[in-house]
Amino acid sequence: MSHEFDLIRYITELTQDQSSSIELGIGDDCAVWNVDQSKILLATDMLIEEVHFDLKNVSYEQVGRKALAVNLSDVAAMGGKPTAALVSLGIPVSASVQSIQDLMYGLIMLSVQYDTVVVGGDTTSHDGPLIINVAITGVVPEHPVVRSGAKEGDSVFVTGALGGSLSGHHWSFQPRLKESNYLTSHYDIHSMIDLSDGLASDIRHISQASVIGCILNEDEIPISDRVDKRLSQTERLHHALSDGEDFELLFTVCSEVGDQLKQQDEIEVHEIGVMQGDSDQVLMKNSHGELVQLPDAGWKHHFS
Amino acid sequence: MSHEFDLIRYITELTQDQSSSIELGIGDDCAVWNVDQSKILLATDMLIEEVHFDLKNVSYEQVGRKALAVNLSDVAAMGGKPTAALVSLGIPVSASVQSIQDLMYGLIMLSVQYDTVVVGGDTTSHDGPLIINVAITGVVPEHPVVRSGAKEGDSVFVTGALGGSLSGHHWSFQPRLKESNYLTSHYDIHSMIDLSDGLASDIRHISQASVIGCILNEDEIPISDRVDKRLSQTERLHHALSDGEDFELLFTVCSEVGDQLKQQDEIEVHEIGVMQGDSDQVLMKNSHGELVQLPDAGWKHHFS
Repeated sequence: MSHEFDLIRYITELTQDQSSSIELGIGDDCAVWNVDQSKILLATDMLIEEVHFDLKNVSYEQVGRKALAVNLSDVAAMGGKPTAALVSLGIPVSASVQSIQDLMYGLIMLSVQYDTVVVGGDTTSHDGPLIINVAITGVVPEHPVVRSGAKEGDSVFVTGALGGSLSGHHWSFQPRLKESNYLTSHYDIHSMIDLSDGLASDIRHISQASVIGCILNEDEIPISDRVDKRLSQTERLHHALSDGEDFELLFTVCSEVGDQLKQQDEIEVHEIGVMQGDSDQVLMKNSHGELVQLPDAGWKHHFS
Repeated sequence: MSHEFDLIRYITELTQDQSSSIELGIGDDCAVWNVDQSKILLATDMLIEEVHFDLKNVSYEQVGRKALAVNLSDVAAMGGKPTAALVSLGIPVSASVQSIQDLMYGLIMLSVQYDTVVVGGDTTSHDGPLIINVAITGVVPEHPVVRSGAKEGDSVFVTGALGGSLSGHHWSFQPRLKESNYLTSHYDIHSMIDLSDGLASDIRHISQASVIGCILNEDEIPISDRVDKRLSQTERLHHALSDGEDFELLFTVCSEVGDQLKQQDEIEVHEIGVMQGDSDQVLMKNSHGELVQLPDAGWKHHFS
């Protein structure tokens, strides 16, 4: 089964005639549901042993923490504030009570840090891999920041250095809720996404949803210290573009706001490019000033 | 791992100091979240191949349908109206695209029937069992009907005949949303739960949450035609009490409302007992007028 995008199209076609209070359905980091004067965010992510983690290399506590963290990152990407989480567990019959307590401890300690309440769930014991699904709700103070809001001439920013997440960062990252809250409460953020698939892939999501091309500046892409320094610059850049699971925010603002953002020192931001051109043109300006195609690489596994 | 109830206690202890807009957390059919003037319902259920279904005996379409249906039943049990669903899939690498389309078709056709929109999800391909998790949201018109609302002297009702669900009914049941809506819009329903674990087990949830005992009348418990008629009456009754997955509503009302309910013919209801006595006394009056302990049997697998 490797036709996920056909499946998404199939689901979207089946559901497109349903009218309701849903403002935004499948296709962004969260869905948006209008309730009275509020906008409710909804998202979900499932982690499965042997695909997303190997318990030889990572603790149950880290798995529980990450299962929530990736959902919190989705809420951050919409400019929202998380409220409640539902947790479903598929528990291997061989797992000890202590290990599952450790898993929930990791999850709940992070939930407390970000004012999110675990309000329910479901558990099943089975002869198979450890499975953890988290569904999250949040609220948006004003309007959600969607992928489709980028405008011609917008400056493109990221909230931190990229690449090398597999060295451990993807287990310990802080969801960028503080940064998201600061950005949306002080500036007009046109579009935003969290970097889960990798910059080269996620910038395309903004580009396609907004129907505008993009030119990234190779020299401005912040490469994380986690990326092996013995590698060539080209190889290090490739890691920053394609490793995925950075969980930084990628966002666009008009150029005047971009200038203001570079003056503030409340949060880390890096300007990395500009939105311009046709939507199928996602390019990178290299050190010699030449425009090259951005490699299309990275994880693809979401339909929310 | 067979200590689910210790796990629930552990989670509840870790989360109990969190204050928020959550009106009701872990421990009922849905959690309740206050948003502006609205009360939002939240619930989730996970189905895993080989535990909850065997694809030799059931179609992908039926699996998809049921994954949503059990969640709709949770919303019905609170007196709510469903709105949106998030769907996470763990897809075996051997599964065909057609089979997963069939699964989503079964789910989405039911969602359309009950005005519920699939707003997002997550898919993972893996070398393991088929996994489907649904998280659902709903709204309650006025106040949620909780398990803890039963009062001394309340009449106990169910919305249909019980037992024999494993013969196929648990794949085709209609979530009792119409019945729930009728009941809550016309009568003061004190407490309610959906029958997932089985009457003998689920009546205890109402009894314990409401801190009142219960006496069921053996002769009044409606036994489904699905239960093998060649069995003895005692055996048939045991099936009605313990099979689980009936997905009828079990609810309590004051005796005057009980009398009114028996006069209406809008929905099927059966009066089966009365709430009285100490909360640890869940009894059954048999055909000879003798009080006997109700067998404590049935499935236990939820913490929402």
